[in-house]
Amino acid sequence: MKTPAKDAKINPQDNLEKMRHTLSHVLAAAVTELYPTAKFGIGPAIENGFYYDIDFGDAKISDADLAKIEKKMRGLIARKLKMEKREATKDEALNWARDHGQDYKIELIEELPEGDKITFYDMGDVFTDLCKGPHLNDLSEVGPFKLVRVAGAYWRGDEKRPMLTRIYGVAFPTEEELNEYLKRQEEAKARDHRKLGKELDLFCFSDLVGAGLPLFTPRGTELRELMANYSLSLRGREGFKKVWTPHITKTDLYKTSGHYAKFGDELFMVHSQVNGEDFAMKPMNCPHHTQIFASRPRTYKEMPVRYMEATTDYRDEKTGELGGLSRVRSLTQDDSHVFCRKDQIKEEVARLVAIVKELYTTVGMQKLRARLSYRSDEDKYLGDKKLWEMAQSQIKQAAIDNGLDYFEQEGEAAFYGPKIDFMAEDAIGREHQLATIQLDFVMPERFGLEFTNEKGEKERPVMLHHATLGSIERFLSVFIEHTGGWFPFWCAPEQVRVVTVNDQISDYVAKVTGILDKIVLDKPLKYNELRYTVDESADSLGKKIKRATDMKIPAILVVGPKDAEANEVSVRLRDKEEKVKLTKLADYLKELK
Amino acid sequence: MKTPAKDAKINPQDNLEKMRHTLSHVLAAAVTELYPTAKFGIGPAIENGFYYDIDFGDAKISDADLAKIEKKMRGLIARKLKMEKREATKDEALNWARDHGQDYKIELIEELPEGDKITFYDMGDVFTDLCKGPHLNDLSEVGPFKLVRVAGAYWRGDEKRPMLTRIYGVAFPTEEELNEYLKRQEEAKARDHRKLGKELDLFCFSDLVGAGLPLFTPRGTELRELMANYSLSLRGREGFKKVWTPHITKTDLYKTSGHYAKFGDELFMVHSQVNGEDFAMKPMNCPHHTQIFASRPRTYKEMPVRYMEATTDYRDEKTGELGGLSRVRSLTQDDSHVFCRKDQIKEEVARLVAIVKELYTTVGMQKLRARLSYRSDEDKYLGDKKLWEMAQSQIKQAAIDNGLDYFEQEGEAAFYGPKIDFMAEDAIGREHQLATIQLDFVMPERFGLEFTNEKGEKERPVMLHHATLGSIERFLSVFIEHTGGWFPFWCAPEQVRVVTVNDQISDYVAKVTGILDKIVLDKPLKYNELRYTVDESADSLGKKIKRATDMKIPAILVVGPKDAEANEVSVRLRDKEEKVKLTKLADYLKELK
Repeated sequence: MKTPAKDAKINPQDNLEKMRHTLSHVLAAAVTELYPTAKFGIGPAIENGFYYDIDFGDAKISDADLAKIEKKMRGLIARKLKMEKREATKDEALNWARDHGQDYKIELIEELPEGDKITFYDMGDVFTDLCKGPHLNDLSEVGPFKLVRVAGAYWRGDEKRPMLTRIYGVAFPTEEELNEYLKRQEEAKARDHRKLGKELDLFCFSDLVGAGLPLFTPRGTELRELMANYSLSLRGREGFKKVWTPHITKTDLYKTSGHYAKFGDELFMVHSQVNGEDFAMKPMNCPHHTQIFASRPRTYKEMPVRYMEATTDYRDEKTGELGGLSRVRSLTQDDSHVFCRKDQIKEEVARLVAIVKELYTTVGMQKLRARLSYRSDEDKYLGDKKLWEMAQSQIKQAAIDNGLDYFEQEGEAAFYGPKIDFMAEDAIGREHQLATIQLDFVMPERFGLEFTNEKGEKERPVMLHHATLGSIERFLSVFIEHTGGWFPFWCAPEQVRVVTVNDQISDYVAKVTGILDKIVLDKPLKYNELRYTVDESADSLGKKIKRATDMKIPAILVVGPKDAEANEVSVRLRDKEEKVKLTKLADYLKELK
Repeated sequence: MKTPAKDAKINPQDNLEKMRHTLSHVLAAAVTELYPTAKFGIGPAIENGFYYDIDFGDAKISDADLAKIEKKMRGLIARKLKMEKREATKDEALNWARDHGQDYKIELIEELPEGDKITFYDMGDVFTDLCKGPHLNDLSEVGPFKLVRVAGAYWRGDEKRPMLTRIYGVAFPTEEELNEYLKRQEEAKARDHRKLGKELDLFCFSDLVGAGLPLFTPRGTELRELMANYSLSLRGREGFKKVWTPHITKTDLYKTSGHYAKFGDELFMVHSQVNGEDFAMKPMNCPHHTQIFASRPRTYKEMPVRYMEATTDYRDEKTGELGGLSRVRSLTQDDSHVFCRKDQIKEEVARLVAIVKELYTTVGMQKLRARLSYRSDEDKYLGDKKLWEMAQSQIKQAAIDNGLDYFEQEGEAAFYGPKIDFMAEDAIGREHQLATIQLDFVMPERFGLEFTNEKGEKERPVMLHHATLGSIERFLSVFIEHTGGWFPFWCAPEQVRVVTVNDQISDYVAKVTGILDKIVLDKPLKYNELRYTVDESADSLGKKIKRATDMKIPAILVVGPKDAEANEVSVRLRDKEEKVKLTKLADYLKELK
């Protein structure tokens, strides 16, 4: 079971953290001046900035109101007001909150233990807030910031409580950092895979089907199959064989594997109304694959046994955490499992590392960092601690041997063993955890897996877990944003569009498509017939080219009477335009990246 | 939603039926002579013969006991005993049953309404049984029969009641028919896909995963992917585009489609423990596909829109009805849906009929009958009756236009429309319902599907549902038995095995595999690299050939020093053996069927 990377924790002692926290108070002070009846929830520092949850009563606040609030904030900051801490009793605190009509603060104060000291921060004589701190000494220390966005947020995250207005701001030590961040945000927004998914007609959602359950249109299906098949082909070359397993299972499988005890209450449970039996949807494939390994006797001659399957797992994510393809309930893992002898681990890990490097180079995310994820001292891990230490040192040696840019992190291991998680950097510098290689001595033991060795004795195999793309949906969310929807030629759902200048050249178009029909691409995925369409509509050439460009088709072949005469086509790529002779067209297209 | 063909009902007036029913009494009489304390349940005539459920007390009965029971039966028949009906009151009947210790009969009699006449049949003075009849007049009319098998059966099908012993017999009007039936049974047994599935290492089951949920091994996965890809390729050529949909959905989807009202209590229900939401596993794909069609506006220019998907559906079959791949809970449909204009129906149906014919010819089951499945007068059908009549006449016209060998049957339609179900005949003369084409005016209406026509008006499309293989699992169960595991060359999981005579020829083997590595097969499925292995083990040649033959590898290439000298290989096919020059090897293999 692969878990996504967690955000790095912000160090609360950090001065930046203090500044961001102070800015949330400045925000509240500014809001109070503009909307005297506003009631405040909580206002913490977060990664890149801060927010405050505010009940504006009947007033409707939108992004359009941010400029005036920000202006007020800058006014307060210019006054270099002091931030002063003072203590109060619970009663004093409650009186303050009641006097100011701060109902949410009343609720917070009431939950504090009797007798504890409660702290307030005064911002000069302008604004007071219940707060633990710490804060800057005064507002002159506040650095560059910007209010960026208004969102809705239920009070205390509870959808039965009132919906408050959350105002987000960002803040950085320097103007450069702020501007860089804002620019990257702009870029990320333009590349948002949810937006591009719609514009490029890749996938959709349906209210009748439900949140977190994307449906892939023909173009999106083409893309996901190309990526999955490429990933499978790399492993197929290395001796992995495809298997197929059902999407549900009796929970006995997970009771045996150990998953049930760990994640039983996170499973999608399946109930048979006809037979009264209970099943679970599979959230991972390793236990199923052990059952294929165990389906007949094995000998040392056939080890390692390598299985792969691109199959959909179901994970019961919280509705509020679902977003586009980044986090879905139906995630298709390009999963692999190796059953091998202990002395084969090294070679098998090297094989998988090479596959990961090749795939991420092909998709243009060659900058990879490897996180060596170890166990912590918590007792949530299964298996003998000595075995773990041995496995962790093997993982580390593999990272060194294979020249990985690695770092080590405790507490990120799977419950059954340590792993190498690969973090790939995208075109705008964001890191994403995608591929993984995991070492597992536990599951073979729990399932009683064995093979007969040279001496005729039963021996227990080791298991390696590996996903190259990770989940295809998550990979696509990254890949769409990485490419901004300008997919490399080989994996663009529509690679070529022939666009006609007028309706006098259908014979010549037939000649062109005759060439296109024969093109079979072999790199990086073998045997791909060229995917093209023809736009012979009566629309203007400009309109047709715009339509093709909007769909980010990598190669537009403009064909008019002059081209027919010259036996050529005008090829429009994203960054250039050139004439190509028909005799050279097939080779030209085959070389496009 | 596609439903399997039902067994033809036996006509109770039929003389054959009487004979089979009488034979069940003869069986009971013979058992009574041999086991005087035996207690009888029920003993009906069934398709091909009869059975009786019997409580033998402490005696254990197996197939080995059938000969002596059958001998007794033949003795009774030789006496030409009369079968005489007589009536009794309920009290008389109960007294008879109590006198004879027939506890199961007591239970049956007690359930009969007071005052009704109860009938008995006396077989001469030898045996009496409670029975409605009808029967033969006397045992001289009994034709050829045979006891075939002993099985366990719970009294009244209730697993909480005692397990009785069921003895099965078969009976036919003539010896020829009996022998032909028995021979076909022998053939079917040798071809049993469950047996071959294990022997050829195609699929397995796991008690931890559950009944009806097959797991496919590498060989079986290869086979199922080849068949699915071939089926998809035929439709791809005809303009169908692959889509992808998740395996679960909110039940809202089926409430809208109408499936929920019809089949709601047969759905596998999925419960989210995290969010408390309920989902269902999809038992069919049509409603999901409507949501992709509906995901953006459509115009007449892009009609027909054709989707296809080979995806796994889940149906909550009764545990007792599951068997091998014939009836599974996880069934992968090679499903298609066409959204078209009314005037495009004819062409689209013809397109689908042509695809069906091509596929079944390729797999060697070209003898197809088409059942035109119409609605009955029951009110379980949705949609206007006039539309149904129109649709049914279109289905019939399509059958005529496309030269189908068809018959018509009422009451077999889907709830949303009439259909053409294709019955394919296998190598031993059994008919199987596999492909289907269905016409649907209902679902587009219920989902509010529409496109803009030439006049700028909204128009409602028609939907066609189609599966070519049907479910891949069920198709494979038929195909494995049809071929007896000797798969055609193009789809054999392992097409070629190179077997070495001794260990002195590894250079020559490398030369041979160098040729094999370059072979790409193009018929009937494009771009298939040859699937081969090399057996260079130290075992004897005989053992290696036997191993390859047991796995039913279509082509075994025997390679020895003499072959190396002559630059050839000995090719062993199923029915012949010949020497092939290396220079001709690639072409030779490419031509194998």
